[in-house]
Amino acid sequence: MSGMRAVCVVGLGLIGGSVLRAAVRAGRPAWGFTSSTSDSEAARAAGFDVRSTVDEAVGEAAAREALVVVAVPLPAVDEVLRTVASLAPSCLLTDVVSVKQPVAEAVARLVPGARYAGGHPMQGRSESGWVSGSETLFDGAAWVVVADEDTDLGPWREAAELALDCGAHVVPTTAGEHDAAVARVSHLPHVLAAVLAATGADGGPLALALAAGSFTDGTRVAGTRADLVLAMCEGNRPALLDAVDDALGRLGAARGALASTGGLAATIRAGNAGRAELMGLRSAERGEVRVDLTDPEAFDDLRSLGAGGGRVLRFDGTVAIADLPG
Amino acid sequence: MSGMRAVCVVGLGLIGGSVLRAAVRAGRPAWGFTSSTSDSEAARAAGFDVRSTVDEAVGEAAAREALVVVAVPLPAVDEVLRTVASLAPSCLLTDVVSVKQPVAEAVARLVPGARYAGGHPMQGRSESGWVSGSETLFDGAAWVVVADEDTDLGPWREAAELALDCGAHVVPTTAGEHDAAVARVSHLPHVLAAVLAATGADGGPLALALAAGSFTDGTRVAGTRADLVLAMCEGNRPALLDAVDDALGRLGAARGALASTGGLAATIRAGNAGRAELMGLRSAERGEVRVDLTDPEAFDDLRSLGAGGGRVLRFDGTVAIADLPG
Repeated sequence: MSGMRAVCVVGLGLIGGSVLRAAVRAGRPAWGFTSSTSDSEAARAAGFDVRSTVDEAVGEAAAREALVVVAVPLPAVDEVLRTVASLAPSCLLTDVVSVKQPVAEAVARLVPGARYAGGHPMQGRSESGWVSGSETLFDGAAWVVVADEDTDLGPWREAAELALDCGAHVVPTTAGEHDAAVARVSHLPHVLAAVLAATGADGGPLALALAAGSFTDGTRVAGTRADLVLAMCEGNRPALLDAVDDALGRLGAARGALASTGGLAATIRAGNAGRAELMGLRSAERGEVRVDLTDPEAFDDLRSLGAGGGRVLRFDGTVAIADLPG
Repeated sequence: MSGMRAVCVVGLGLIGGSVLRAAVRAGRPAWGFTSSTSDSEAARAAGFDVRSTVDEAVGEAAAREALVVVAVPLPAVDEVLRTVASLAPSCLLTDVVSVKQPVAEAVARLVPGARYAGGHPMQGRSESGWVSGSETLFDGAAWVVVADEDTDLGPWREAAELALDCGAHVVPTTAGEHDAAVARVSHLPHVLAAVLAATGADGGPLALALAAGSFTDGTRVAGTRADLVLAMCEGNRPALLDAVDDALGRLGAARGALASTGGLAATIRAGNAGRAELMGLRSAERGEVRVDLTDPEAFDDLRSLGAGGGRVLRFDGTVAIADLPG
């Protein structure tokens, strides 16, 4: 039954547009809304059900007990939630916004009756908008579904089923741990790419003419639309500050070592080790883990799974089938 | 005639091994030497002429008036140059080492009679060794050939012809300007990739499990063999210090803005602009420029060309045919 849960996607940019396509691919009834005329026209031209107003889209979600997916940038979340509160106050609700604590706080404040579990598919591109999306965007990707102390199993599983239907695997964690992790592996990369792109361009046409793979790859995400990067990074301010401080500490230590002994070995070897951990995790043998969702400790088990690099691959009745490296 | 100049490549790793292959592809007589048994065996198995000793390789270069290409990491350059000084003291000499001032100083000190112009193909991979190379590695790449005040036209053109024969285009500049530029677009990217990889790995398995394209691309070159990165970065210490200081300044400013106003707009927009300059340079319309190499000001013209993002594409008699963006 939950496999056929209808889906209402609000926001049809790269991520929301890909969720709508992937939900339809999975056979779900699905419709959406976007305030962008160009995204709306493109989605309709491709044959998707795009409503004329957000009220119409959310109203139908209430009538059909659909899962509402908030897929707008963080600064636009409150406005969408106010519509949800007025038209579908107790709906099943998830989101695909790149930070989780601020969204959870907004939901608690604005739609306290919603049956909510936050989500975040870890997949993006430096392009944006409906036209950049695809029904396969999430195939093989990680998709966080927040399992906090106050998350209920019902909405958690609804959001997780959507993620699996979209081709992703589910990583359970808390909102706070999510935000700390993505500050390091998603937001800091954008800040460092911007710093690198600007410092390279300061070298003028000669430097840019000599730029090869290391600079091209290292600055790729600096080409992302600035408003999207700002919404994402500024929305995760405390966690990003910690990550930037760590990076500043490491870069300052490199600077000091280069100036004094001339040696960068500690910096470069730590980077080697970090990259090896990343590649090792991706190629690791993984053992199956089963989590009985009727167990009162189920969420503890799920959070431990996520903390260890594990992921939920499917459900079998009330059991989550997962795997874990090593 | 110069199209058939023989080539002797000392060092058969990724870059040297690719130069040997590309020189043979171009129809040149070419042989090499490497102190690595595995590289030597692999090159011989692929049918290339690899000599048993560096003396034999360099001795034959002297006998055949070959262009000697030094393709070992910076820390091994002096030893190779001592062999060149003893067996081929007035040979045509170039190198493909990633910094140019230290090599130029070593050549002036150890082989003052060499007819030398330094070179640097701006192409690499995070893999290393003979097996990672290919005859097409330099196709379409930039290849710096140093045109300093004391460079002679003869060896400059010999090194440039080799670069063109290898499929690259030639960027003329001074050793100092080269070193400053690559500090920004080649060495700083390695330092920042290392900082990012280590800071991300500090987030544990959860963070690495959530890493997507921005972290994967941003840390790719952190997988390069540490000794190669260290030789490259530590060999360009003064210029890299300047680049690291600029990056520290920009990252510190981002930190301050995030902590005070919460805004990262200046950082992210500067990164956007830098990336746009890079992509703009690559897609720019380019106009043809001809430099008459018999003109006493030819090297000034070539250096101006390089400073403006220009490149030499071929020679027509004593004229260098080049293009320049805009």
